[in-house]
Amino acid sequence: MSTQPQNRYKADLRDFSFLLFEQFKLGELLQSERYSSWSEQDVKMVLSGCYEFACKVTGPLNAVGDQGCQVIDGKVKTPPGFKEAWNKLREAGWRNVGVSPEYGGQGAPAAVQVLVEELLSGSNTAFNMYPGLAYGAGEIIEHFGTPEQKQRYLPRIFSGEWGGTMCLTEPHAGTDVGAARTRATRRPDGRYNISGTKIYISGGDHDMADNIVHLVLARIEGAAPGTKGLSLFIVPKIRVNDDGSLGPFNDVVLGGIEHKMGINGSATCVLNFGENGDCIGELMGTTEHVGMAQMFQMMNGARIAVGIQGVGVASAAYLNALQYAKERKQGPSIQNWKDASAPKVAIIEHPDVRRMLLDMKARVEGIRALAVKLASHRDRFLILRGKEDEKAAYHQGQVELLTPLVKAYGSDQAFRVCETAIQTLGGAGYIKDYGIEQYCRDSKIFSIYEGTNHIQAMDLVGRKMGMQGGMHLMNLISDVGKFVATHTEHPAFSKDIQTLSRAQEAVSGAAMKFMGWFQGGRMVMVPLNANRFLEMMSELVVGWLLLEQGVIAHQALASTPQDHPDHTFYQGKMASARYYARNVLPGVHAKWELINLEDDTPLTIDDASFATV
Amino acid sequence: MSTQPQNRYKADLRDFSFLLFEQFKLGELLQSERYSSWSEQDVKMVLSGCYEFACKVTGPLNAVGDQGCQVIDGKVKTPPGFKEAWNKLREAGWRNVGVSPEYGGQGAPAAVQVLVEELLSGSNTAFNMYPGLAYGAGEIIEHFGTPEQKQRYLPRIFSGEWGGTMCLTEPHAGTDVGAARTRATRRPDGRYNISGTKIYISGGDHDMADNIVHLVLARIEGAAPGTKGLSLFIVPKIRVNDDGSLGPFNDVVLGGIEHKMGINGSATCVLNFGENGDCIGELMGTTEHVGMAQMFQMMNGARIAVGIQGVGVASAAYLNALQYAKERKQGPSIQNWKDASAPKVAIIEHPDVRRMLLDMKARVEGIRALAVKLASHRDRFLILRGKEDEKAAYHQGQVELLTPLVKAYGSDQAFRVCETAIQTLGGAGYIKDYGIEQYCRDSKIFSIYEGTNHIQAMDLVGRKMGMQGGMHLMNLISDVGKFVATHTEHPAFSKDIQTLSRAQEAVSGAAMKFMGWFQGGRMVMVPLNANRFLEMMSELVVGWLLLEQGVIAHQALASTPQDHPDHTFYQGKMASARYYARNVLPGVHAKWELINLEDDTPLTIDDASFATV
Repeated sequence: MSTQPQNRYKADLRDFSFLLFEQFKLGELLQSERYSSWSEQDVKMVLSGCYEFACKVTGPLNAVGDQGCQVIDGKVKTPPGFKEAWNKLREAGWRNVGVSPEYGGQGAPAAVQVLVEELLSGSNTAFNMYPGLAYGAGEIIEHFGTPEQKQRYLPRIFSGEWGGTMCLTEPHAGTDVGAARTRATRRPDGRYNISGTKIYISGGDHDMADNIVHLVLARIEGAAPGTKGLSLFIVPKIRVNDDGSLGPFNDVVLGGIEHKMGINGSATCVLNFGENGDCIGELMGTTEHVGMAQMFQMMNGARIAVGIQGVGVASAAYLNALQYAKERKQGPSIQNWKDASAPKVAIIEHPDVRRMLLDMKARVEGIRALAVKLASHRDRFLILRGKEDEKAAYHQGQVELLTPLVKAYGSDQAFRVCETAIQTLGGAGYIKDYGIEQYCRDSKIFSIYEGTNHIQAMDLVGRKMGMQGGMHLMNLISDVGKFVATHTEHPAFSKDIQTLSRAQEAVSGAAMKFMGWFQGGRMVMVPLNANRFLEMMSELVVGWLLLEQGVIAHQALASTPQDHPDHTFYQGKMASARYYARNVLPGVHAKWELINLEDDTPLTIDDASFATV
Repeated sequence: MSTQPQNRYKADLRDFSFLLFEQFKLGELLQSERYSSWSEQDVKMVLSGCYEFACKVTGPLNAVGDQGCQVIDGKVKTPPGFKEAWNKLREAGWRNVGVSPEYGGQGAPAAVQVLVEELLSGSNTAFNMYPGLAYGAGEIIEHFGTPEQKQRYLPRIFSGEWGGTMCLTEPHAGTDVGAARTRATRRPDGRYNISGTKIYISGGDHDMADNIVHLVLARIEGAAPGTKGLSLFIVPKIRVNDDGSLGPFNDVVLGGIEHKMGINGSATCVLNFGENGDCIGELMGTTEHVGMAQMFQMMNGARIAVGIQGVGVASAAYLNALQYAKERKQGPSIQNWKDASAPKVAIIEHPDVRRMLLDMKARVEGIRALAVKLASHRDRFLILRGKEDEKAAYHQGQVELLTPLVKAYGSDQAFRVCETAIQTLGGAGYIKDYGIEQYCRDSKIFSIYEGTNHIQAMDLVGRKMGMQGGMHLMNLISDVGKFVATHTEHPAFSKDIQTLSRAQEAVSGAAMKFMGWFQGGRMVMVPLNANRFLEMMSELVVGWLLLEQGVIAHQALASTPQDHPDHTFYQGKMASARYYARNVLPGVHAKWELINLEDDTPLTIDDASFATV
């Protein structure tokens, strides 16, 4: 219906290289033996190559994919172009950037890998679910499988010949995974008959690969109730013969696909295992009843991946809204607002539009920095473990602590950014032509799957915060404190550093409050405030990271000529830092005050008082 | 795919009667001559009758309507069942509750009318757009039309025989309505030839009525640029002969319909007027170049109606999420969280779910109270004008002041509530079966149409706040002050009344800040902070109204037996008040602190610094 600019995938690679090389010092890591085959040039080539792929192959299929999958003759048919894109992705090798060279991968640092993920998810979240889940399944087999299992499955999963899934949820077991009823029965040959129904299985069936390797949580007969009685099974859609060739169908029957708010190109399946009594699974590795722990190993990676999906979609929404704001002319400048014949200006000139744009910019860059920080800790842990164990433990502790933040704050902010992007376009944001509303619909799932954001918040306050006597949190607080102390007199940011310091005090104070609740037996106050605390802590870390970027940019500006493109880039980094510090960061202290009120009204209200219907 | 409870329209009529008769004293109004034909019993019968209609007729078509409209042979075909519902609505007469008896209506108080609107919009927003817009068009003709025009159009619009629309937006003129290019050329017979293209016309074409009366903003040849040169025309789809019979087609050609994020049952049309040079319009009334003022008369009503759409959809989302939370069993009680064999409980038992439910409850009741307060002022104005002019002016002033709040805060909170409703259901909230995600998609448009929420904020700070030397705002602040003074020692709410007082100071302080910007020539700071101020002020008013409800409920409880259903209802009202006062209201002061920082980063950042792409 319109002649306005169409949505097209975009990413700001300059921010990527800033994060990697100017803020998180990837250059130092590339000196290590582990990443010795990687140069700065290699990293940049991979990112620009993958960006080109995302713009040309996956990006143009994003709107197409929104039409959804179909079930034809009991099988999932993916949207037009998906199969070709899957094959091109295999050939291009972008899925393998982070995979160990042992399995044909490129062994890139995690910090690079997350940005590759951003490009793939940002350009087409629904499509990227298929290879993403397969990769996650492969990682679990790599960690826990027997040598035979690795050999049988990994080369073909990591190469993209086969797909893969994670099968946890059941109709009666969503967040409460331990309530799973899928059964495994020992067979004389050492394998297991699997029977049960799994729902919400992303990529549970599709037409892009010859086989799909399902990892299925099931309870072996006689095992304990709850999560402790669950074992993990490798259950291929088509059985695999000993020589690696494909055997008969393994009785994994598609029950249907869900119709959803978004990510419609990703088939969300109901799978019936052993409906005809003929579904065989192999135990993952050699130990029964450790399925939940094995799955959890993957869960951390999957949760980080969801945060990255958020970064990718939010960034794409922001950059497209920005382009629209630069091209769409509407109304006169505020200087001439009373003059009806004044020239129309691009809407980027209107103050409220600028506010929305900068708000999106700061949040997108903030959650991206959060994710890359986490990945950098992961890389340092991998380099240091077995050599400098204390330092390695510090880094791994930050990975643990930041994972729920990346997942929950990343996903919540993504939805907020997409909502703002719609508002920036106005009516054009609400209609499908511009593709902005799709970002919003796609992004809502991020706060739900791989553990709802409340589960993340409980993971933070109930597990991560208390680990090793609170060491990880203390380390983080101390890192913020060092930054504050170093830059308290900073010529450009001293006022904002004060705000950061106040936020740091608020987070420390709130953490003490939680400790008091745990120790004083007021456990019920914990879940009531967990989400708020996760948000406070995320805002503290993002505020810190953006201010660190501002400080780096401020210093770099001194040696950057005015006419160099980096000049406006660095000024933009300073603007993000300032905006976030003055419009979001003060809220950390405000939230602490709310926590201190200890309102327990949601607990004391009667069920019957919620409504008379 | 599921066996879980399906979404079904619900409303809490007890809250309606509480608002009307316990908080806003409708009983007093019914003593007046104007509403003398209405008794309390009549009001309750209308609301329960309309509720029954909403549950049986429009509610069940909500999901059906989401499939969208089709264009067949150049005409809009509405979703299955819409035409029957339109006819049933005509017969039932619910559209006429607020219409003047002169045109066959029931002349109900506005406070009753808005609740009827809530039921119709809440059960099926998309469907209710058609009669809603027709009603709005009728209101304009009632205000500004000549006697002949009223006679020709009104009986048939108000009866539902014909539809009606408002045609403002053009491809190059969205928020900047004054840029409209649609032309009107005087004809010898005193009428005008109309030519131009209008977009985003809700109900611009449909198959439910014999004719559609379009109200079209157009510029008469030679008229001034901008809004001052626009005139309003009555342009029926089918011409109307002098005897009232239908004549030939009036060259209003459907250009197409938009595909949207939501409200898919409402056809959003492109209309080409006079494509074949044969479109004739009549000037509204007898005065040229006053079209914008005439349209604005309607705009206030339309903006309030959008706020009500927000209330309706948010309430339906909340009550359905509540039902799900009562029925869905998942996980053990927090008291037994380590015991895998503990019985599963309904998720309403989980603290974070209770938090989300109470959050939705408080916000829904808050925006409903805001809307009914506005309508009550309108009713008192209508009763008092010409009798006690000073009091009447006070009430009309509050109508002016509250209109942008009802529209913008109502719509923003509605989206927030719908988002929370999705989260309450988890994965089930994201799939279409439960109908919750549709509420979220439908509600996003509320922040955009009838003037984006930033336009509302500018209307508040740029017009309403300064009217009559700031009198309306001062009156509001003074009303809050009286409430604070009266209840400062309240046995249940004294602490929360303090928070309210602090919020009142913050709003007063922020208003002074704006005045300073206006007077000091820092105009650019105004749009940058307008949305934030609108939110602060809305939270102040909602916090006040909910606390007033809490005080009323506290008093009523003293004389309500424990086993009376009102007992839990009143406790629920107290819980909403307490929750909002302790979790939302403190944010008003926090926002004032942000305003005081006077951050202007969005203005100082270079366009080029937003991104390198």
